[in-house]
Amino acid sequence: MATAKEEFLKEFGEHYGYPNGPKTIDQIRATEFNRLQDLVYLDHAGATLYSELQMDSVFKDLTSNVYGNPHSQSDSSSATFEIVRDARQQVLDYCNASPKDYKCIFTSGATAALKMVGEAFPWSCNSNFMYTMENHNSVLGIREYPPQK
Amino acid sequence: MATAKEEFLKEFGEHYGYPNGPKTIDQIRATEFNRLQDLVYLDHAGATLYSELQMDSVFKDLTSNVYGNPHSQSDSSSATFEIVRDARQQVLDYCNASPKDYKCIFTSGATAALKMVGEAFPWSCNSNFMYTMENHNSVLGIREYPPQK
Ligand SMILES: Cc1ncc(COP(=O)(O)O)c(C=O)c1O
Ligand SMILES: Cc1ncc(COP(=O)(O)O)c(C=O)c1O
Repeated sequence: MATAKEEFLKEFGEHYGYPNGPKTIDQIRATEFNRLQDLVYLDHAGATLYSELQMDSVFKDLTSNVYGNPHSQSDSSSATFEIVRDARQQVLDYCNASPKDYKCIFTSGATAALKMVGEAFPWSCNSNFMYTMENHNSVLGIREYPPQK
Repeated sequence: MATAKEEFLKEFGEHYGYPNGPKTIDQIRATEFNRLQDLVYLDHAGATLYSELQMDSVFKDLTSNVYGNPHSQSDSSSATFEIVRDARQQVLDYCNASPKDYKCIFTSGATAALKMVGEAFPWSCNSNFMYTMENHNSVLGIREYPPQK
């Protein structure tokens, strides 16, 4: 592994990691993803990795604020409602999506989101649902929703 | 507040908190729920509170192990799959429910769980769905699923 990396760096070293960033990729791995050790994690499409800095911040937030079900009427629920609303707005902003035309809905994952699309899409008898053979099951599942011709 | 508590304790002090537990309720509040300060949180049916000890343990787990999407094929995915499987088993054990007769399914919340019941229940034209006027919207939603007579 060590020699393979050396050879790789000899050829591509100039572009490796974030050459102009405040931390090199090796520093980021050592400080923010220490749990990886020598592991090379590639499944970012399935589930990506959070950094230790992110976890720290979530931990501090969740142990210093009192959150509750955003749909209840208590003070902690209003606080939670506001945080959820701001998070939706941040996602819309990031996507340059106007709240006039778009809503941000949090789901439990890709499968739940795709199911919701299948359920909510205004299917008509002229609708054609097209997908590739290689699509994930969660996409194929949408087949169930268009009216059968 | 302080006098009200004193009066309450004078009458019910013997049974207050967990009188035979390792920590009194005031100690638990001070060490495990420090974020509450003087807040009295009652919405445990909507969303209950986690202790700081629980958060500590989750934090340590998530920053020292590499987890991924439990449905992928990588090492971190297998590790995640095993943890999810064990958690399901723990829930079944806790409910004294045999895996022969029961499956444990994690959902994003009560509404998602009730929707799943509505979708999966083997409705027939003899089915009657009964509910109380006071039921939460998430229960009322099940009305959409029985075949209309
Ligand atoms: C390409 C692709 N789509 C969808 C999914 C399903 O994602 P989720 O588990 O968030 O429903 C996966 C999961 O691995 C995936 O790899
Ligand atoms: C009695 C009751 N049922 C169901 C729900 C919905 O729960 P969830 O937000 O987990 O879908 C709530 C939420 O406050 C509730 O109070």
